[in-house]
Amino acid sequence: MKIALLGTGAVSRVLAPAFLYLGHDVVVGTRSPLTTLDSNTAYARLATRYSALGLCTFADAVPDAELVVNAIDGPSCVAALTSLAPALAGRVLMDVSSPFDWSLPDAVLDPVNTDSLGERLQRALPKAKVVKTFNTLAAEAMAQPSAIGDGDHTVFVSGDDASAKAMVTELLRSLGWKDVLDLGCIRTARATEMMLRMWIDASVALGTHMFGFKIVR
Amino acid sequence: MKIALLGTGAVSRVLAPAFLYLGHDVVVGTRSPLTTLDSNTAYARLATRYSALGLCTFADAVPDAELVVNAIDGPSCVAALTSLAPALAGRVLMDVSSPFDWSLPDAVLDPVNTDSLGERLQRALPKAKVVKTFNTLAAEAMAQPSAIGDGDHTVFVSGDDASAKAMVTELLRSLGWKDVLDLGCIRTARATEMMLRMWIDASVALGTHMFGFKIVR
Repeated sequence: MKIALLGTGAVSRVLAPAFLYLGHDVVVGTRSPLTTLDSNTAYARLATRYSALGLCTFADAVPDAELVVNAIDGPSCVAALTSLAPALAGRVLMDVSSPFDWSLPDAVLDPVNTDSLGERLQRALPKAKVVKTFNTLAAEAMAQPSAIGDGDHTVFVSGDDASAKAMVTELLRSLGWKDVLDLGCIRTARATEMMLRMWIDASVALGTHMFGFKIVR
Repeated sequence: MKIALLGTGAVSRVLAPAFLYLGHDVVVGTRSPLTTLDSNTAYARLATRYSALGLCTFADAVPDAELVVNAIDGPSCVAALTSLAPALAGRVLMDVSSPFDWSLPDAVLDPVNTDSLGERLQRALPKAKVVKTFNTLAAEAMAQPSAIGDGDHTVFVSGDDASAKAMVTELLRSLGWKDVLDLGCIRTARATEMMLRMWIDASVALGTHMFGFKIVR
């Protein structure tokens, strides 16, 4: 599958090699490729190691992709992706973003409660098929669920398009996820985004980001 | 231990007999005892079955209690408990409340994100020792953790007073809880209260309230 990863942060640096390993064609998009290779040393190291992971612009990454992954930082992703609306029409957009407003103290969430980043993206890109997932996890855990509790924990999907959720669910299963819980329409992205408050507080209490949420039933 | 349960809803109806069974002295407080016995048929049935579970007013329930449980509905509990502030001074207040604003559609939360009911209670009752717990669970699951996944899931405590959290934790363990996670100060009540959005959406997706959250690590 042709996958465009947008963003060069921790999430892309974990998912890009994992998707390559599974045999997918991966392109990584960023605002300004030369600036990123110059300033993002972690990404530059990755690009040296995997020759396939050269960088292109957001606009160049999207047109051929069967799956686009939004791994752009939360506060700026809606504006960045809205500018790509024509290219994203009809595509599956896997949204991994977190609504942290870092300009506020204590990492409060914005939007929250009556809206979510997942819904904002779907409204801004009505012809894209947004699927929210992965945002309840540390980047390191996304592509390696077995690193936590032998993989016995839950990942969530939210989205309005059943076939898009099926595509994302198959990709999650190929990464080793056994418990993929379909919460329903994109509105349920509020639920996983609001779990980020617990994610932060539990991270502090446990002294690690390497934990997962399991829905025990 | 002398326990005062405030409220006669589903939570009190589950916890009152469970605490009796463990050998505690239980009193149940309500706004207007005669009205409750007349209109709350579920509670009236319980009081018929357990003679110890007669009702008294909120004000009469608190003075002898070593532990007070706030099982009053979320939107009205802060006002109701503030009126009991002198009697609650120095006591452990186990807060089980949920910040659902039922006047808004879709059960949005109020307060949320930058505040919580747990914090509001602690501010309104600075001399009480508020411990938030249990609010991530259906009432039926609180006193019977083993009914879900053989009890292999997590209950959370948040509070500023270590001895109060220790008392509540011991009570939780006596009910069968094996994984009690201390999240930290009362501010972390935001985390468990904000999980209520997931609690609702997962309930709909699974078709049952009988599930638990486990922090897998």
